[in-house]
Amino acid sequence: MSQLTSRQPFPWSRSAVRTTESPISWLMAKTVGDPEILSLAAGFVDTDTLPQDLVKTAFEKVFADASNAREILQYGITPGSRRLRQELAKRLERQGLTNVDPDCIVISNGGQQSLYTVTNVMVDPGDIVLVEDPTYFVYMDVLRSAGARVIGVKTDSEGMMPDALEERFAELRAEGVRDRLKILYVMSYFTNPKGCNPSTERRKALFDIYQRELADGQYLMIEDASYRDLCLEGPDEPFIKAHDPSNEHIFLSGTFSKAFAPGFRLGWSYMPRELHDAVARQKGNQDFGSSNMNQAIVAELLASGAFEIAAGRFRDRYRAKRDVMLAALKEFWPSSAHVLKPMGGLYVWTELEGINTDPGSEFFNRVLEKKVLYVPGRYCLCDETQGPRLTNGMRLCYGVIRPEPMREAVRRMGEVVAAMS
Amino acid sequence: MSQLTSRQPFPWSRSAVRTTESPISWLMAKTVGDPEILSLAAGFVDTDTLPQDLVKTAFEKVFADASNAREILQYGITPGSRRLRQELAKRLERQGLTNVDPDCIVISNGGQQSLYTVTNVMVDPGDIVLVEDPTYFVYMDVLRSAGARVIGVKTDSEGMMPDALEERFAELRAEGVRDRLKILYVMSYFTNPKGCNPSTERRKALFDIYQRELADGQYLMIEDASYRDLCLEGPDEPFIKAHDPSNEHIFLSGTFSKAFAPGFRLGWSYMPRELHDAVARQKGNQDFGSSNMNQAIVAELLASGAFEIAAGRFRDRYRAKRDVMLAALKEFWPSSAHVLKPMGGLYVWTELEGINTDPGSEFFNRVLEKKVLYVPGRYCLCDETQGPRLTNGMRLCYGVIRPEPMREAVRRMGEVVAAMS
Repeated sequence: MSQLTSRQPFPWSRSAVRTTESPISWLMAKTVGDPEILSLAAGFVDTDTLPQDLVKTAFEKVFADASNAREILQYGITPGSRRLRQELAKRLERQGLTNVDPDCIVISNGGQQSLYTVTNVMVDPGDIVLVEDPTYFVYMDVLRSAGARVIGVKTDSEGMMPDALEERFAELRAEGVRDRLKILYVMSYFTNPKGCNPSTERRKALFDIYQRELADGQYLMIEDASYRDLCLEGPDEPFIKAHDPSNEHIFLSGTFSKAFAPGFRLGWSYMPRELHDAVARQKGNQDFGSSNMNQAIVAELLASGAFEIAAGRFRDRYRAKRDVMLAALKEFWPSSAHVLKPMGGLYVWTELEGINTDPGSEFFNRVLEKKVLYVPGRYCLCDETQGPRLTNGMRLCYGVIRPEPMREAVRRMGEVVAAMS
Repeated sequence: MSQLTSRQPFPWSRSAVRTTESPISWLMAKTVGDPEILSLAAGFVDTDTLPQDLVKTAFEKVFADASNAREILQYGITPGSRRLRQELAKRLERQGLTNVDPDCIVISNGGQQSLYTVTNVMVDPGDIVLVEDPTYFVYMDVLRSAGARVIGVKTDSEGMMPDALEERFAELRAEGVRDRLKILYVMSYFTNPKGCNPSTERRKALFDIYQRELADGQYLMIEDASYRDLCLEGPDEPFIKAHDPSNEHIFLSGTFSKAFAPGFRLGWSYMPRELHDAVARQKGNQDFGSSNMNQAIVAELLASGAFEIAAGRFRDRYRAKRDVMLAALKEFWPSSAHVLKPMGGLYVWTELEGINTDPGSEFFNRVLEKKVLYVPGRYCLCDETQGPRLTNGMRLCYGVIRPEPMREAVRRMGEVVAAMS
């Protein structure tokens, strides 16, 4: 039967050609290949804390009535379950936003699909996106796939720096490409990879620059609030979106993965009405809407308050694990290592004096010989950086690894740091 | 706080500009606005048959063990749960394929995401896609959004016609655009909207043309088998994919929505390895993979045989409902109306002698006055048709409407047909 002639390669689209293997895949493949590896790289959540009991209760409740159960096994509507969007709007209002319109929310498959979709709605190949540097590397994959020119803005311990942002705007004007700017992407809580939490003043300063620059042409601010629910200490800072009470400007994106359960694959975004319709149309083309069943369960969990119980458990767990990691870093690493203490989220950012941490570097290889993995800062850097390229950064994640192996991984890394310092 | 200057419109991407409101949305909005409407238009599945009992049992089983439950609430991997891909591979082998490699399967958010993703992997604006005419209108939305030139191939009661397909190839060569052809899209079971089921010979003839034409340049055949599990009578025809035993050519796409439950939002595709990696990378950008929890439940349902029980119930129900619709058409419509009896799927295709059925036509409006909706054939037509454009077709769906209102809807339509004949 198989007399087919030997096949030529498929004629890929330009988008497919741009969509190369994520560097992180190479890293993750190492873990899969060797079960002894202690991974500080994986961005998974704490398995032990996943709320299987609360999910079970909510599932039983929504399935108790057969007719209701059948309704949620049917197709839903593209922007998402009305009940879930209403519950989410109420929650955003409890978190300080005003007049949140459920009809301006789109439920997505994790926060990732929100970012993917709005990017496709805004960005043509060659268009410009400004991001923190270092930034969330998976979003950089999306941007490269879309053919965007990704320009980094310098960060300090509070995230994106206003001065550096203004400098970038001046450069875009000088280069005559200001009209190609489509998106300013800002993580507003416990950023990935640096764990920064912008202060109230920093949030305001970034929004002011965004708004002032609108005079030179419309573009979109994305506020990625993925880690907001994982505040481990300090006050709950307001959303940047709070500066946009008439919902005209900011695309606010969040997720149910980090403080509840990634296995539901649900996230959300709240945006200006005009953008909502464009995003919903693209989402319709992608999948007609996220799982109706999962949305019904999460709506029930939000309504009953169980969602907040799950989030609270995660915070308690991560606070303890973060402290184990910080203590281990203090105990096992030389004091010359810079460690940024995160007030929330899942990541500790470190920089080493005079040691290159790139994949394939001596440091990386010696750590790997000791069966430990981290995310090299290199993976999080933009194509266009401000100032010299960072070569000595690392993201250490306390999300999924248990406290004892985590302490051991930090200890082993410390041996390499000490030997090379 | 709201001293924002009045906003200019957002600078959309070209893709967003191409992604216009689907015509079907207009139709669906009519139903939402008026609960008295009897809709033969909605493509939803039969709510009464949705397997809430089987889902409940499977959910209880996978959640019985807390540790297992927590695993499935964690992130999964992008191509999908290994267990689900293995169960699906076994099922495809029971359905006649050989050596199905689970590593060449990608689990998606419904069949829709498979089509969306492979289209983005293959198609640049201006590229050509050949489809049945009339065809699945939602896929046409995806193609238009991708900027594809959608060229229709004439259909008869068995679906795409081999002669017409060869004619199209000759035209592409004559026009000098054969190299822009990227996809040949074929529905192989109970097509949407016509309900055609290609015979064994027709399947072979289409594959032979596909294969012969490869000599002129590589392109991809998509076999959309969404309705395979809804065979109501007659033999189970083989997949076209059976002609591609070394898995080098055909992208086979299917869904768990039609014979199980749309609320899980899961589908699948099986494809050449080279394509698999490109599709998985795009899927990674979109959402990192479909809901791990839902995949675990469906894998359990496939393993236990409950999935086949659910599919069998749907078939029994649809057989009865199809027969109610056919009987009503016979009873209430003049014999001049052409009715294509479907051997499976969800749709009855009809054509009226000398009556225009387009949206906004006199017929459409008079039917709507009687509170009945159908899908005008117009919505399913390609931009480029072979021969005169069809103006008198209609898709009537027996999926979600119950037998009595369905009979009543057909009766009311019959009054309009009779009055206008």
